[in-house]
Amino acid sequence: MRLHGYYRSSTSYRLRIALALKGLDYESVPVNLLKAQQRGDAYRARNPFGTVPMLEAGGRERAQSLAILEWLEEAHPARPLLPNDIEQRFTARELAYAIATELHAPLNQPVLKYLQDELEQSREAVTRWYHHWLARTFDPVEARLEQLKSNDFLFDRPGLFEAVLVPQLYNARRFGLDLAPYPRMTRIDDACARLDPFIAAHPDNQPDAPEKPQ
Amino acid sequence: MRLHGYYRSSTSYRLRIALALKGLDYESVPVNLLKAQQRGDAYRARNPFGTVPMLEAGGRERAQSLAILEWLEEAHPARPLLPNDIEQRFTARELAYAIATELHAPLNQPVLKYLQDELEQSREAVTRWYHHWLARTFDPVEARLEQLKSNDFLFDRPGLFEAVLVPQLYNARRFGLDLAPYPRMTRIDDACARLDPFIAAHPDNQPDAPEKPQ
Repeated sequence: MRLHGYYRSSTSYRLRIALALKGLDYESVPVNLLKAQQRGDAYRARNPFGTVPMLEAGGRERAQSLAILEWLEEAHPARPLLPNDIEQRFTARELAYAIATELHAPLNQPVLKYLQDELEQSREAVTRWYHHWLARTFDPVEARLEQLKSNDFLFDRPGLFEAVLVPQLYNARRFGLDLAPYPRMTRIDDACARLDPFIAAHPDNQPDAPEKPQ
Repeated sequence: MRLHGYYRSSTSYRLRIALALKGLDYESVPVNLLKAQQRGDAYRARNPFGTVPMLEAGGRERAQSLAILEWLEEAHPARPLLPNDIEQRFTARELAYAIATELHAPLNQPVLKYLQDELEQSREAVTRWYHHWLARTFDPVEARLEQLKSNDFLFDRPGLFEAVLVPQLYNARRFGLDLAPYPRMTRIDDACARLDPFIAAHPDNQPDAPEKPQ
């Protein structure tokens, strides 16, 4: 497998976590979003969506991270990302998809760029926008976790939900969101941060990450 | 089952199509988005996301339409929404999820309201925004359909992809997008429009739709 991605893209990050949780090896192919490589003709001939991540696997080039996660679960069922129980599967998907559908898109880089360039919004206005949509989905996710009395993970071990949550929290921190109202979510994040698959998938540990100052 | 929704909400519409394709009966409970009923305390006690649709089924209240679609497929496997073949399942999800994740969120009512009220954007600017994001996802979806040489449906009969596509095209027409560049998509839309499940699910045929002028 070859994973075309960007170290700090939250959808690339969620796919790296899923691959690591399943113990699947892959080669990383960095795509520089700052240079808009994902919008170039060569890349779009392979992935018309012009997005990262793109996974070369099973003889084809696959876009859309959630679709890839569901495919991984079907094509590589060992070390499942979803529980066996139908109701637990629904719960995991409800929370993961809330973040991936309602929350991810308005925070995506092209949308932020449109706000700045086309709508001439200030950096402060973009940050307010970002925090607004984060809170709008994080609040109900935290409420559901509270109803479920979650501990270190949504269920007994990390899977689809944690793969989607952890990158979104990484982004929320980058944008300075106060995470104090989200103790259940940050507990899960802390527990995941200690596990090898999440360490391997972290943006800092990717080949295209800038070197940290000594 | 009881489906809490709004006649013109594209996510309610996609769920109505899926339920009709599976032949599952339900009672419609209208939620008036124009009166912000979905943000009220009574509703949010049942669905903390404050969104439609919400499906009461199998003894619980379920939010997030994509998660509900995947649950329906597992809990009610007859008349499947996804093909049996793993690769065809991936294709259907890649295209459906592209619309549901990248496209739906920036066009969602709360986002349009934020653009108008908080960012003081004109009606014309909001329409430009809407068309921009529609084209950005419709273009690659059409490209994939062209690669697949699709005819009346993505595969041999309508399912997950058609349930997500048809409501988005309905919305695109409401916002005056020229659909001429999308012959594969509109062919699928035309074929679906002739089928009973799609007719039953159409916004015009819901109890909360305004009466048409005689």
